Amino acid sequence: MRELTVQLGERSYPIYIGEGLLDQAAFYFDKHGIGKQSPLLIVTDEQVGRLYLDKLESGLRAAGYRTVSAVVPAGEQAKSLLQFEELITIALKAGLDRKSAIIALGGGVVGDLAGYAAAAYMRGIRFIQMPTTILAHDSSVGGKVAVNHPLAKNIIGAFHQPAMVLYDLETLRTLPPREVSSGLAEVVKHGLIRSAEFVAWIDENADKLRALDPEALGYALYFGCRVKAEIVSQDERENDLRAILNLGHTIGHALEAVGGYGELLHGEAIAIGMVGAARIGVELGAPREVYEVTKRVLAKCGLPVRLPAHFDTDAIMDAMRHDKKFKEGRMVFIVPTAIGDVVIDKNMSAERVRRIVEQLKEEEQAQ
Amino acid sequence: MRELTVQLGERSYPIYIGEGLLDQAAFYFDKHGIGKQSPLLIVTDEQVGRLYLDKLESGLRAAGYRTVSAVVPAGEQAKSLLQFEELITIALKAGLDRKSAIIALGGGVVGDLAGYAAAAYMRGIRFIQMPTTILAHDSSVGGKVAVNHPLAKNIIGAFHQPAMVLYDLETLRTLPPREVSSGLAEVVKHGLIRSAEFVAWIDENADKLRALDPEALGYALYFGCRVKAEIVSQDERENDLRAILNLGHTIGHALEAVGGYGELLHGEAIAIGMVGAARIGVELGAPREVYEVTKRVLAKCGLPVRLPAHFDTDAIMDAMRHDKKFKEGRMVFIVPTAIGDVVIDKNMSAERVRRIVEQLKEEEQAQ
Repeated sequence: MRELTVQLGERSYPIYIGEGLLDQAAFYFDKHGIGKQSPLLIVTDEQVGRLYLDKLESGLRAAGYRTVSAVVPAGEQAKSLLQFEELITIALKAGLDRKSAIIALGGGVVGDLAGYAAAAYMRGIRFIQMPTTILAHDSSVGGKVAVNHPLAKNIIGAFHQPAMVLYDLETLRTLPPREVSSGLAEVVKHGLIRSAEFVAWIDENADKLRALDPEALGYALYFGCRVKAEIVSQDERENDLRAILNLGHTIGHALEAVGGYGELLHGEAIAIGMVGAARIGVELGAPREVYEVTKRVLAKCGLPVRLPAHFDTDAIMDAMRHDKKFKEGRMVFIVPTAIGDVVIDKNMSAERVRRIVEQLKEEEQAQ
Repeated sequence: MRELTVQLGERSYPIYIGEGLLDQAAFYFDKHGIGKQSPLLIVTDEQVGRLYLDKLESGLRAAGYRTVSAVVPAGEQAKSLLQFEELITIALKAGLDRKSAIIALGGGVVGDLAGYAAAAYMRGIRFIQMPTTILAHDSSVGGKVAVNHPLAKNIIGAFHQPAMVLYDLETLRTLPPREVSSGLAEVVKHGLIRSAEFVAWIDENADKLRALDPEALGYALYFGCRVKAEIVSQDERENDLRAILNLGHTIGHALEAVGGYGELLHGEAIAIGMVGAARIGVELGAPREVYEVTKRVLAKCGLPVRLPAHFDTDAIMDAMRHDKKFKEGRMVFIVPTAIGDVVIDKNMSAERVRRIVEQLKEEEQAQ
């Protein structure tokens, strides 16, 4: 069992990473002051719910908690205002009050949706993250919650820190290989922005990670969460530093939007975005290995490193214009300067990004 | 011109109360750091928009601001998730970014709706209140923003403090008498919870207030805002003290819901609720004048002090059960102990409240 704390003053919270946490949820809830008087709402999706909802509910009920659950469709389309309203309706009908909590059992989509419902319900009730994907090691830490609008991803949301993150590694065993790789993209990102040593470790251990070796995976998730937690502690509301976590995301979000939030998984889209960012970094003076290592490590993790040719460059640039990382008309872009280091460029030329997007279609496959 | 500050550390903000502020909006925006690079969204309703939108827009544009506007239907039904989504769509299409602001030009409904859009858009952008009703002296201070759910009022929301409140008294001149009285209910409430002297002053000056005498009205709104600001400064997120602002609201919100958010105006509903609360106060030992003065002052302000007989008591009690002031199954109720003083009773019996609701139907008209 690994444990760390996200330091945010009175909003600080613990992250537990280990095996068997689903069974012990009641113990941790009780330890952290989740009372048994008020009902809890568990939000999950059809896939995760089929596997783990009964287990979680029966454990909580055996310990004296009252629970109600909401099972949403799997996939990004669940992050809609309509689904959000449905959760609020369920919460109201179940009598959730200000001492209740909403529990997200699932990946990033479930976490974002359930978290936004918790942020909004009665102007904010407690929220517990129980991630069941590798990708969610990123989204479950830091309090960014949101739903999508047809015109832009994550545009309706809040900063609402969880009360606790319970990360049961056993729930990762059922992930399909493509989801495993997608999740590793954020693990790689945390290395690329903060630790050359960790990137080298991934380079060595990518096979173990893809095979879900518990020790390797536990370490990688712990390290990833720690990088994220440190940055969030310093800049909770993304006034400045926290923006570095968006490495690969400016291009990546646009690719997801243009692909209709379905063709590319989030990690796949940001993998391509990170290759693009590395190319820009090298153009602007970073050593060439920044590009080579980025591409190699991502490919080792089973991620795409070039853009399918049918993605329309105009549509991609247009999607970027709706991204929150635009401030007063200028494009903010995270640029690698070395492996383990990045800078925030608040004045990136859209022309340069456009050229790189074009080049990403011609990218040779690494390895 | 009167000015005061809501003290909330880095979220502190000024309130300006005076005549002609609509014309001078650009001056105050500029003074408080609202930049001209990013577009502003003005939200108003059909009634207020017809009277004041052109004036505000032309003043801002003349000073170099880019503005876009959204005109919503007048009335509580505009506080819907659908209308909220529409505002987000307009904001996206107009290219609002993180340095933009959303301006609420109107009463409490517009403030709550626009404020919630500002709280959610890109996880929170700035928000400026320009109240055009007396009622909004209450809702525009304190950062509570929300939309309604078909099952409960204000259940989807946030705490999102405005960057500034600009209160132009000239915009109050066009208020219909029933709206004036409704607004005075919250003025009376601020007296009842904090200042016997102010209640006595209203008792003397009710006619002037109803006639919109500028000096009397300016003083009353300043005093009301000051009481609200002091309480909010001490308890921003309603952990405890702030609950006293809910005097009359437990019954009042239920009456609004049962009346379909249309039959009774907000101030009318809480006036009846305050008479009910005063009756409970006297039952629990407060001097009888608490009830008599409450009823007299509200009636002088042109407000109803008894409940129309066709309101169904079961439906009212049911609506209360969905109210946020329920914690772990118990009813929280604000009980007057003297004129200018109240206590928070966290253990109020639903039976007692039910009996009082019945009695409110038989209440004799004061005066």
